[in-house]
Amino acid sequence: MMVLWRKLLAEFLGTALLLACVVGSGIMGVNLARGNDAIALLANAGATAGVLYVLIVVFGPISGAHFNPVVTLVMRLRGELSTREALAYVGVQVVAAIMGVLLAHAMFELPLIQPGTHARTGHAQWLSEAVATFGLVLTILLGVRHRPASVPALVASYIFAAYWFTASTSFANPAVTLARSLTQTFAGIRPGDVWGFVVAQLAGGAVASAAASLFIAKRQHESDVASA
Amino acid sequence: MMVLWRKLLAEFLGTALLLACVVGSGIMGVNLARGNDAIALLANAGATAGVLYVLIVVFGPISGAHFNPVVTLVMRLRGELSTREALAYVGVQVVAAIMGVLLAHAMFELPLIQPGTHARTGHAQWLSEAVATFGLVLTILLGVRHRPASVPALVASYIFAAYWFTASTSFANPAVTLARSLTQTFAGIRPGDVWGFVVAQLAGGAVASAAASLFIAKRQHESDVASA
Amino acid sequence: MMVLWRKLLAEFLGTALLLACVVGSGIMGVNLARGNDAIALLANAGATAGVLYVLIVVFGPISGAHFNPVVTLVMRLRGELSTREALAYVGVQVVAAIMGVLLAHAMFELPLIQPGTHARTGHAQWLSEAVATFGLVLTILLGVRHRPASVPALVASYIFAAYWFTASTSFANPAVTLARSLTQTFAGIRPGDVWGFVVAQLAGGAVASAAASLFIAKRQHESDVASA
Amino acid sequence: MMVLWRKLLAEFLGTALLLACVVGSGIMGVNLARGNDAIALLANAGATAGVLYVLIVVFGPISGAHFNPVVTLVMRLRGELSTREALAYVGVQVVAAIMGVLLAHAMFELPLIQPGTHARTGHAQWLSEAVATFGLVLTILLGVRHRPASVPALVASYIFAAYWFTASTSFANPAVTLARSLTQTFAGIRPGDVWGFVVAQLAGGAVASAAASLFIAKRQHESDVASA
Repeated sequence: MMVLWRKLLAEFLGTALLLACVVGSGIMGVNLARGNDAIALLANAGATAGVLYVLIVVFGPISGAHFNPVVTLVMRLRGELSTREALAYVGVQVVAAIMGVLLAHAMFELPLIQPGTHARTGHAQWLSEAVATFGLVLTILLGVRHRPASVPALVASYIFAAYWFTASTSFANPAVTLARSLTQTFAGIRPGDVWGFVVAQLAGGAVASAAASLFIAKRQHESDVASA
Repeated sequence: MMVLWRKLLAEFLGTALLLACVVGSGIMGVNLARGNDAIALLANAGATAGVLYVLIVVFGPISGAHFNPVVTLVMRLRGELSTREALAYVGVQVVAAIMGVLLAHAMFELPLIQPGTHARTGHAQWLSEAVATFGLVLTILLGVRHRPASVPALVASYIFAAYWFTASTSFANPAVTLARSLTQTFAGIRPGDVWGFVVAQLAGGAVASAAASLFIAKRQHESDVASA
Repeated sequence: MMVLWRKLLAEFLGTALLLACVVGSGIMGVNLARGNDAIALLANAGATAGVLYVLIVVFGPISGAHFNPVVTLVMRLRGELSTREALAYVGVQVVAAIMGVLLAHAMFELPLIQPGTHARTGHAQWLSEAVATFGLVLTILLGVRHRPASVPALVASYIFAAYWFTASTSFANPAVTLARSLTQTFAGIRPGDVWGFVVAQLAGGAVASAAASLFIAKRQHESDVASA
Repeated sequence: MMVLWRKLLAEFLGTALLLACVVGSGIMGVNLARGNDAIALLANAGATAGVLYVLIVVFGPISGAHFNPVVTLVMRLRGELSTREALAYVGVQVVAAIMGVLLAHAMFELPLIQPGTHARTGHAQWLSEAVATFGLVLTILLGVRHRPASVPALVASYIFAAYWFTASTSFANPAVTLARSLTQTFAGIRPGDVWGFVVAQLAGGAVASAAASLFIAKRQHESDVASA
């Protein structure tokens, strides 16, 4: 088994690079797109999908490539890691996400800390985050079961789509949400709007975990029968 | 064998999320693209392809991931499922497709039901739908035969292309067509234009099923000879 | 072995759908892109890549999925098919390519035959076509040798890139070039410019075939040594 | 083992085609995008990713498909090739990169040599190049270890993302940087700014090589234990 600090280093590097990409590609998109936010979001979604695919492939065998407290929580509930490990993962994810935002700001010569001003609140936004996280967790749980080697491509493809089909552009990750409250650029969110997103994300993840169990439990049972 | 209700739940979740994506990404695209519908369609096609790849991978092993009455009908003709199952599939697909449209409207704070106003009728549109569905069914049938693990990527790639190369943007699915008659957004269609699309889709699917048999029957025969 | 008419049917369907996509997605792109040809070409390249991936996967096991006289010629030189088969392939490819253009025109309610008016001639254009075809044939020959299951994705990725990095937008196919002289839309070419493209494509393909032999012959020799 | 000249020919063809694509797709993008550089960069990034995937698949089994002096240096440090081979690789990469730029200029009827005028200097740009190269080398080293067959897709996906999330659009390659100082088009850089990029790239690559060792060494040790 991989020792814990190596897993945490993988979570750190992966989450930091993910956030550098989410925020950095948003800045670049807006800088170049002359006010056409659809082109900026296309670039932002494509870059995020590309880096997610890479990070999950290269860090997956080390830490599981969670990069997301909701995923860590779901995996804890399924017994994939201990409570102590889960707490360490979440702590590292939050710190790394913030570092990633600072790195993006540094690369684009912007103030390192800049409290978000982009209002993202209300029932429609919360519904969007719940749906986005529901889909993400369902994708991971069923993907791991049916085709584990494709999970990196599945998560990348899902997030590309979810950037577009949810009204919130699919944060779907409490650490990402918190860190994005520290930027006033394209990817930002007002600090006061973070809690609503996090609650919605937890709810969406919980429902997905329950829904996945309906499919997974059955198959387990079948294999029990088959081996009886 | 998977029990029927699990299959129907997979068809429900998959079809609903598919429609939420088709309609939701269209709304987001138009909201951001400043009147440049090519960018909106690029986002719409990319998001739809992304989510189709995911949904077929994760629900394929459970229900076959039809999400489409034409596909269910073709599979029924090939003996892949019973008439009772096929009818249940189609019923669930239609209800789920409508639920997906409502979900997209809810996420974007739009009236939940809004009869479509986008005129899509006439011979050129019907030809487009027949071609789109012909290509989709041929892709599925030959893909299942030649490279089953790639069917999710094949369907996603095909639909991305078909959004662009058919004049109708490739609905290619009666449940999707019906549900899209309930939105006035980018992806909508007038309720009165639904029947023409559905007839064309059934015709295209039937021709594709016959064409595929020319290739598949031969190979079957060869293997008979080989094993003689 | 697959009988010839099935191979020819596969070449026919594949080439016709390829051209319907090349021309159709160009028409749709220009219709929607409000004069921004970069967006139209992005859609055109993406749709072409998507459909190429699909068509090579589904028809490859039947006919080899050439869809291109240069590819057929190179494969004839390598002994993959007989002269009689090669001539039949090329004849079918040309007829199918023209049918595909007519189908695109029919779907978009345009005159079925419309001699191209887009000037594409001169040394820079011919160099572009030679480079484009060189790269395509090299991709196929080395791809078949090193990773045959990836050839559909390789050809699709290459053509997406070549649409952008050659000044001619990479026709790289004599049947496609001839057929595109029958449309005045985005993908068109003047009939009088066809011959220059075809000569350049044949030259590029020949050089690629020779270059590939430098790599492939060596490995063959190595395996001879290894088995000695 | 492949003889050296075949490896060098593979590095030559791969690096030249890579540069022809990087520079050529930038020219095409700017020609068509009507001043919207975000669309030009989207095309540039997509085309570069597409061609990288192809070139690494087809030349990887021959030369390792470095196309990049930083990669060759890292592989030398890991004992994958001799000092003599490494020097030959780097020499060929530089010459081929320049040839690729000339080829792009020739295809687009531009002056073959045109010293770059695009200023790219300062701490933020250097940080960007260090981050870009860090990510690239980490992707390669961990990708080779965890999923070698996916390295072509990993590098392509990473570079697509890095074009967007770094302020320098991710040159991440000294031979590419030098060659791009010979063009005044979209992809260009001022000759005087090359050294800063190269130093940053070497630093980023060195840090990545060290970071990768933290993960790789551990696993080696584990397998020693396992086989004890």
